[in-house]
Amino acid sequence: MENSPEVAVLRLGHRPGRDERMTTHVGLTARALGADRLFVEPAAAGAEGTVSEVTDRFGGPFEVESTDSPKTVLRDWEGATCHLTMYGLPVQGVEGEIRKAHREKPLLIVVGAEKVPFSVYERADWNLGVTNQPHSEVAALAVFLDRLFEGRELDREWAGAIRQVVPEATGKTVESVEK
Amino acid sequence: MENSPEVAVLRLGHRPGRDERMTTHVGLTARALGADRLFVEPAAAGAEGTVSEVTDRFGGPFEVESTDSPKTVLRDWEGATCHLTMYGLPVQGVEGEIRKAHREKPLLIVVGAEKVPFSVYERADWNLGVTNQPHSEVAALAVFLDRLFEGRELDREWAGAIRQVVPEATGKTVESVEK
Repeated sequence: MENSPEVAVLRLGHRPGRDERMTTHVGLTARALGADRLFVEPAAAGAEGTVSEVTDRFGGPFEVESTDSPKTVLRDWEGATCHLTMYGLPVQGVEGEIRKAHREKPLLIVVGAEKVPFSVYERADWNLGVTNQPHSEVAALAVFLDRLFEGRELDREWAGAIRQVVPEATGKTVESVEK
Repeated sequence: MENSPEVAVLRLGHRPGRDERMTTHVGLTARALGADRLFVEPAAAGAEGTVSEVTDRFGGPFEVESTDSPKTVLRDWEGATCHLTMYGLPVQGVEGEIRKAHREKPLLIVVGAEKVPFSVYERADWNLGVTNQPHSEVAALAVFLDRLFEGRELDREWAGAIRQVVPEATGKTVESVEK
């Protein structure tokens, strides 16, 4: 988000077909909840396209980048890195440290699909769990971003949107945005 | 969760095949983040089975219930009802009211898959959005539950588990639980 170092999400291990919707939801969640960039593998081109289309319509800034080598992105990241996993330390115990680190440098958040290589656990500055229960990488990412930004992501503004939803108690209104 | 009125999640409009993993993730997220019960339609039997298996292994209490008539569950719910939708009022504006209502009565959270009938918008006490951006019903449910319970769900204990994860800075340890 504006006025803070970059937050990027790296989606690892996307399996074509099987993970299509999950990777799309990871990407849309990253965008909606304040991350600045999504890295996906070339196999996830469909999800990449959907997230880009949503950004074109509903605004940004948000970048989607395809990478042949997610391992290189992780290895060479200049900043802090964390990996969301049910085996990690409880989020409520480490979020303060991560928030503090992110005040000074970019943060890369790794979100796995299939089994994540142990090298990722070793490389990450933090392996953290949003609970130590099996649930959903989309849910974990959402809760983590909301806690990282302490809710400020819910009030952000969107640039370059051509459509926006009008929040309503009962209704479904989408309006065009004047450029 | 213990010591508070029930929170149930009603998954609406599940499409066999297409929504299998999303409904499973809705159910696992509901369980992991403090809800007490999940209602799904019979078409979602696969997801129902997966969530029940996770509960058998990692503990509860958490109920999964199949219903032929989700509309009846919603209509006859004795308590408060809210519906997560990108068209609704911002969560940060209404979560306090919902939290207050839930101190006194059970809460039903409706999470749609395909297009949700307008009757649901009319029946819900609150239509609320975790942002007014298109993203993921799993993400919306996760952030909403974390805010509803103000993080207490992360510290809950699990009854009847036969497996539990040992949180670690770097590692993947699951241990058997002595009965």
